[in-house]
Amino acid sequence: MEATRTFPLNAWYAAAWKHEVGRRAILARTVCNRRIALWRKSDGGVAAVQDACWHRLLPLSMGRIEDDQIVCRYHGLAFDAGGRCTRMPSQDGISPSACVRAYPALERHRFIWVWPGDPARADPALVPDMHWNDDPAWEGDGETLFARCDYRLVIDNLMDLTHETFVHASSIGHSAIAETPASTTHDERTVTVTRWMMDIDPPPFWRAQLGKPGKVDRWQIIRFEAPCTIVLDVGVAPAGSGAARGERSQGVNGRVLNTITPESDTSCMYFWSLLRSYRLRDQSLTTQLREANARIFEEDRAVIEAQQRSIEALPELRLHSLKIDAGSVWARRIIERMVEQELVKPGATSGPGSSR
Amino acid sequence: MEATRTFPLNAWYAAAWKHEVGRRAILARTVCNRRIALWRKSDGGVAAVQDACWHRLLPLSMGRIEDDQIVCRYHGLAFDAGGRCTRMPSQDGISPSACVRAYPALERHRFIWVWPGDPARADPALVPDMHWNDDPAWEGDGETLFARCDYRLVIDNLMDLTHETFVHASSIGHSAIAETPASTTHDERTVTVTRWMMDIDPPPFWRAQLGKPGKVDRWQIIRFEAPCTIVLDVGVAPAGSGAARGERSQGVNGRVLNTITPESDTSCMYFWSLLRSYRLRDQSLTTQLREANARIFEEDRAVIEAQQRSIEALPELRLHSLKIDAGSVWARRIIERMVEQELVKPGATSGPGSSR
Amino acid sequence: MEATRTFPLNAWYAAAWKHEVGRRAILARTVCNRRIALWRKSDGGVAAVQDACWHRLLPLSMGRIEDDQIVCRYHGLAFDAGGRCTRMPSQDGISPSACVRAYPALERHRFIWVWPGDPARADPALVPDMHWNDDPAWEGDGETLFARCDYRLVIDNLMDLTHETFVHASSIGHSAIAETPASTTHDERTVTVTRWMMDIDPPPFWRAQLGKPGKVDRWQIIRFEAPCTIVLDVGVAPAGSGAARGERSQGVNGRVLNTITPESDTSCMYFWSLLRSYRLRDQSLTTQLREANARIFEEDRAVIEAQQRSIEALPELRLHSLKIDAGSVWARRIIERMVEQELVKPGATSGPGSSR
Repeated sequence: MEATRTFPLNAWYAAAWKHEVGRRAILARTVCNRRIALWRKSDGGVAAVQDACWHRLLPLSMGRIEDDQIVCRYHGLAFDAGGRCTRMPSQDGISPSACVRAYPALERHRFIWVWPGDPARADPALVPDMHWNDDPAWEGDGETLFARCDYRLVIDNLMDLTHETFVHASSIGHSAIAETPASTTHDERTVTVTRWMMDIDPPPFWRAQLGKPGKVDRWQIIRFEAPCTIVLDVGVAPAGSGAARGERSQGVNGRVLNTITPESDTSCMYFWSLLRSYRLRDQSLTTQLREANARIFEEDRAVIEAQQRSIEALPELRLHSLKIDAGSVWARRIIERMVEQELVKPGATSGPGSSR
Repeated sequence: MEATRTFPLNAWYAAAWKHEVGRRAILARTVCNRRIALWRKSDGGVAAVQDACWHRLLPLSMGRIEDDQIVCRYHGLAFDAGGRCTRMPSQDGISPSACVRAYPALERHRFIWVWPGDPARADPALVPDMHWNDDPAWEGDGETLFARCDYRLVIDNLMDLTHETFVHASSIGHSAIAETPASTTHDERTVTVTRWMMDIDPPPFWRAQLGKPGKVDRWQIIRFEAPCTIVLDVGVAPAGSGAARGERSQGVNGRVLNTITPESDTSCMYFWSLLRSYRLRDQSLTTQLREANARIFEEDRAVIEAQQRSIEALPELRLHSLKIDAGSVWARRIIERMVEQELVKPGATSGPGSSR
Repeated sequence: MEATRTFPLNAWYAAAWKHEVGRRAILARTVCNRRIALWRKSDGGVAAVQDACWHRLLPLSMGRIEDDQIVCRYHGLAFDAGGRCTRMPSQDGISPSACVRAYPALERHRFIWVWPGDPARADPALVPDMHWNDDPAWEGDGETLFARCDYRLVIDNLMDLTHETFVHASSIGHSAIAETPASTTHDERTVTVTRWMMDIDPPPFWRAQLGKPGKVDRWQIIRFEAPCTIVLDVGVAPAGSGAARGERSQGVNGRVLNTITPESDTSCMYFWSLLRSYRLRDQSLTTQLREANARIFEEDRAVIEAQQRSIEALPELRLHSLKIDAGSVWARRIIERMVEQELVKPGATSGPGSSR
């Protein structure tokens, strides 16, 4: 049944923005094929349980929250944040086997994270680093894009920015990107792709952000953290001002934070935000950047969803990789190794239901 | 091919309201995966045949009725109510093998019933008892709800009315129902669930129907008749007036008639009507009750269709049963036994087509 | 994987009207399950390649044409009309294996034809004869109907015109058609069904076209050319004026040209046009006839799409054939033999992808 999988289960996955999970409304999300109901407890903590009542499988997210417990809309069974049934109307006592699977969940970096795999391994230290979302030295905002494609197609897209030249020709596309080679390094859990474009004419967007005339040194440093988080360190500085040596104070610097959560093998939630360390407290700029970026990501969506449909329609063909795909080749290898390790140890691949 | 089935074939199933089958328009319905074309003959009888022409399989329901025969829209072949081909334009004579399957059909209790199984066993005495629909001592009306779910989820819903407390909290829900235990009895073909709520405050609906102040004795007597008909005997009488002993003349009494016809394993036609034995000839009340009930059944539909989707999405999970499910547990067992008996005797499970 | 098929691959199939393929816009079409991108080169020739980039399978039809080459929207790879990759941005050189399948394509009789099978066998002499579309002695116009059905259901429909009596009762239907027998002849590649209705009252349409009173001799000569082209030679002449002996000068004559290209086993593109050899240069009549015919073909579409749905829903039933189906029986046999011959010789059935 799970001979192969496109994603590891033992990982923290973003399931929602923190503001999406409140104390009254229940949020239904699908993470790694697990349907999950999310709500916030009165202590501020987040609860996440299987979104199907033990009794007759009605989605619990159709119910309501009462005393930190989720109450089924059909027959009133209640479950606590641990998934234990705490009320069975019209029944003498409660069946001890009555429970729903609970998922480790926590809030960090403005996101709600859940761990669909083995709860014993859910170490909070493993949450991917997206601290810029919360850092007062940085400012910005983001959105969620629900894409009908394999989450790895989003990773491919972000690990190779030469596509900007062709997909985003009318906005951020810039022939310098495709013309400048990038270098790729990796370790057990991360891949880094670095491209410095030295002494070039800046594209219109970056010229406006910098607010200075003349040539620039431009950088794109892409860091993948397994299995599905990518932070882009991007910016420009006046040519020769030393940015490539670490002296960025003359330039402007942004971070594009991306984490892509598989819903299934063919759909995903793509959470992104755009942070900057200049012109803080300028909400108009924040809004403008978020909206401009959302338009750019819609161009990507058109491409990757068409790619997904084409892959499904042409099972006899396979993807090929070029030099520009070095980053995604390494990212996919790390993901594959994580999945293989889980499939070797059956304990790690237990299914979504406690009552299997 | 039919290793398992969720419904027996040797049973009468409601296919339509009697007013839906006329002498000119052909009605296309699906009963137990059989596509059936229904029309009315000049003697008032109902004809029901496989809705696919013997020749090129065009649905006969796209054609027209001529001299009590159904004429295919494509090449003009005609079939009589027995499914025999009676006309083949441009052909010398008629191929003796040319026929479509005919289904036993009859009209009773305001419904058109068809028998998808072995015609030799189609005994009219087996039509479920829904006589209140035609009884001048009772008055009311109903509707059809096409639900995208296994018909047994509707049966579960009706066999346990404690769900009213939670699903219909804003209308007929009443905590007394979930608080009062019910007793369940059964025989070979029927299951009866009886609940008496003695000396209680009536819910608003029943207080209005009774038109008298004070406490009441309230009853809900649910009778399942295999495979898919459920009659609810419901009402209230002034507390202590003897209703539980059979003396109901001080109270008001209703019948909710339900028959649920499987179209397929995952969709059904739910025919219901609401009858009463008080305030007869009050069409406004009839309309008001029908519309109020339709709204309540839409609440049920939201629940059972979500339940169906959840069941399909979570094949590794199974339904559990509680004390409140005693009625539906018995109803499902009777259905299962009927199906098993048919699968043992292959003759009873012959397919839809005469030309197999 | 291809144990059976409903269509041969070694044949010319109409993929588009010639005006649909221009030098800037790329046309995406599906022929025999092959997704194909079509464009026009600067020399006027037509190029047709697999509509999926070798690199990451993005449909090439989302890209653009540059110097007669198709450029992928995702990473800028370019392919020439032969399917060879001619540009790989950011790459040192071009991988020799990088190519997409190219399909033989040509323009004739106002259509663009492609050959999905073995390119070595793509003989232009095998393009079906639809020369009337280009012949100055004939005038007319047509349309494309995208039908959700097996293309052979359209062939069945055209090979037996007795259906006009029933499907088109309100327009061109005429009881004389069903009443007059037809004769059928065939050879290796063609089937001809001939029906002469002598000394009859003409139906309203033909009376108007002829513009003369009195009885007529009417003919319908249906010629099938494998695998999917059908030319109807239709007309009327004054009764006794010798049309059946070849002297048609007193009458009016039309050709209904039809070629039906399978997209998949259950969908097709039906290209048709209506030509006449009388009242030339009358564009109003051309438009009127095209629109009238389009309405008639919509009546056919309703029937054949319903037939397709019925066939899919009733896999246990099979189509039966009558005397009126003699033409389509032969046409289907010729198609089957072509498919069988291809499946025997594996070379002819190679798949859509060069990288298989």
